[in-house]
Amino acid sequence: MNYFSSNFKLGILGGGQLGKMLLYNTRKFDIYTAVLESSDEAPCKIACDHFQLGDLMDYDAVYNFGKQVDVLTFEIENVNVDALEALEKEGVKVYPSSKTLRTIQNKATQKLFYVDNNLPTAPFSRFAYTSEIEEAINHGGLSLPFVWKCAQFGYDGTGVKIVKSVDDLKDLPNVECIAETLVPFKNELAVIVSRSASGEIKTYPVVEMEFHPEANQVEYVICPARIPEAIAEKAEDVALRASKAFNHVGLLAVEMFQTQDDDILINEVAPRPHNSGHQTIEASYTSQFEQHIRAILNLPLGRTDNKVGGVMVNLVGAEGYSGNVVYENIENIMKMDGVTPHIYGKKQTRPFRKMGHVTIVNEDLNEARRVAEQVKNSIKVISE
Amino acid sequence: MNYFSSNFKLGILGGGQLGKMLLYNTRKFDIYTAVLESSDEAPCKIACDHFQLGDLMDYDAVYNFGKQVDVLTFEIENVNVDALEALEKEGVKVYPSSKTLRTIQNKATQKLFYVDNNLPTAPFSRFAYTSEIEEAINHGGLSLPFVWKCAQFGYDGTGVKIVKSVDDLKDLPNVECIAETLVPFKNELAVIVSRSASGEIKTYPVVEMEFHPEANQVEYVICPARIPEAIAEKAEDVALRASKAFNHVGLLAVEMFQTQDDDILINEVAPRPHNSGHQTIEASYTSQFEQHIRAILNLPLGRTDNKVGGVMVNLVGAEGYSGNVVYENIENIMKMDGVTPHIYGKKQTRPFRKMGHVTIVNEDLNEARRVAEQVKNSIKVISE
Repeated sequence: MNYFSSNFKLGILGGGQLGKMLLYNTRKFDIYTAVLESSDEAPCKIACDHFQLGDLMDYDAVYNFGKQVDVLTFEIENVNVDALEALEKEGVKVYPSSKTLRTIQNKATQKLFYVDNNLPTAPFSRFAYTSEIEEAINHGGLSLPFVWKCAQFGYDGTGVKIVKSVDDLKDLPNVECIAETLVPFKNELAVIVSRSASGEIKTYPVVEMEFHPEANQVEYVICPARIPEAIAEKAEDVALRASKAFNHVGLLAVEMFQTQDDDILINEVAPRPHNSGHQTIEASYTSQFEQHIRAILNLPLGRTDNKVGGVMVNLVGAEGYSGNVVYENIENIMKMDGVTPHIYGKKQTRPFRKMGHVTIVNEDLNEARRVAEQVKNSIKVISE
Repeated sequence: MNYFSSNFKLGILGGGQLGKMLLYNTRKFDIYTAVLESSDEAPCKIACDHFQLGDLMDYDAVYNFGKQVDVLTFEIENVNVDALEALEKEGVKVYPSSKTLRTIQNKATQKLFYVDNNLPTAPFSRFAYTSEIEEAINHGGLSLPFVWKCAQFGYDGTGVKIVKSVDDLKDLPNVECIAETLVPFKNELAVIVSRSASGEIKTYPVVEMEFHPEANQVEYVICPARIPEAIAEKAEDVALRASKAFNHVGLLAVEMFQTQDDDILINEVAPRPHNSGHQTIEASYTSQFEQHIRAILNLPLGRTDNKVGGVMVNLVGAEGYSGNVVYENIENIMKMDGVTPHIYGKKQTRPFRKMGHVTIVNEDLNEARRVAEQVKNSIKVISE
């Protein structure tokens, strides 16, 4: 199929920041793109060829949208997967597939998938309801502390909590969940694997993540990770094994822990462009967004190595501020070397909401990391 | 003014490929952007916040559009400059200014400006009509060969012709023009100078251009130019002197000849993002498009040096093809290392029409140049 000059139509489910950054590339390749999204104020409202309002969890909305396009992808996992399956049966190319998404959508199913496929992951127990956990603790079937995770998909770090005492359970929703062994780790790492419809595979360099202790959100993504070569190879190997097991088309972002003993355990995966790959826009030969488009359209994959070192800082809403957003000191950070702010275009801020990110690139990665800290200490996402 | 979170509005006159690439950056910074453009099928139709149809040469269309925005810029020189002047008087920030544009719009005026400001340029004569040239030749006031240039702005290399005999004059339009001494040159070079409203100045590295002999269009842009350091410094110095003379805000692309004697002569300038800077998207720390936005909004300018070596190939319509465009072998070039096609989105091709460009980047500039030749020999812009 000639994507560049025909009646080809690409559909994207979700119109948030990831979709917006995908659209830079559909625009660059002049690929006709339709977006289905529930918010009329979403970042993808412009730059797509056709914007359609609709509920991504609604079968009919997704099905009817999908019938109008040739290839369908998504920028968020919270979509109606039954509709995707129906569309696949009727010949629409859905990438990643409904099968991949169904496995990933539920964290308990995702964890079981790792076990079934001999992929390393932290030990866990599965519960139909959070209320069942206390009994398991009392009967000695579960020891404190552990990581509670909501099985249904959470966002921006909600849906995950470290439980240190029975008291910590009180505020949690009574939902399907898992209790995962708390693994002391040296580093959180991630590898993005790209795989095209024809099976071509390329991995991005291993990145290192530093999390905000309270918000459970990434503060810095550092590419490449400052870890020994042997650990990087191990992480890449695990990511490739996960990619092979899922047999996905598109990107698979594999988040991992490097334990105190230098084991690599999979934390979770996302079958789409990912926060841990935003620095690829400025640092890599091919951005993760362009690569996702190449992969799902079965175009040749681009180079995944870095041109220069890259560090990414998330711009999240400061605590204590809600309302019309203001990016305090943004002009100050633009004075710094190799700094590019990305403003997603959400008009309202609230504490810890992802409002944008800043990429810092430099031929010297340590210098990029130094500037990133200046960025982090300067810019503040507040309200009017 | 807080561009990132207020009611600020940026206006762009012209909705072609340069505007489209500017919009990647207004989107990235979430800056509200309105576009005035005469074609309903222009590349900027989507991705701006407000698209308005109108004739860029019409006083009222430009004036009424400009009244709705805070800062007004243009991606093409063919706009009504009287309207810009009126808007400036009424407080709209027009960058580059009507004065800069008025000087540049007419090639005769532009050449006189170089003479008045002691800027090096090839000797020339000015004629009110092409029909006056033959008499000048007959009377010994002008010798063959020379370069005929239409004084009013041309596009895509039309409006320029090498005149070797009186016969060559026959097919030329009878318009205001200049006859410029044909300077044998070693290289065509260009430097893009960025200057912000507050006067901050940064220059991009000198690039080297290779032209298609027939179409008079750039075939390869090579960054940085493979010339001795002393020549590069000389070219940068001339470009900075031109920038100072124009006192422009925004980008000034300065095209120059390096003569056989290693003199640097200004060929012409453009007060906007320029074909000789397209490789900056992938090769530079800051793309020329982002830099133009930074400059006209008086934001700090970004780094202008290269991350890696960059070569740009224009995608122009092949001879003998007109109609619905097809990019033959585009998938083949996407297999090559460091190759990014940019498809502007014009639906109809015709011989020599600028339909897109391809950037090739590599840590080794010679390797990028080698791949660029493969790209040039593979892809072909034809019709259905």
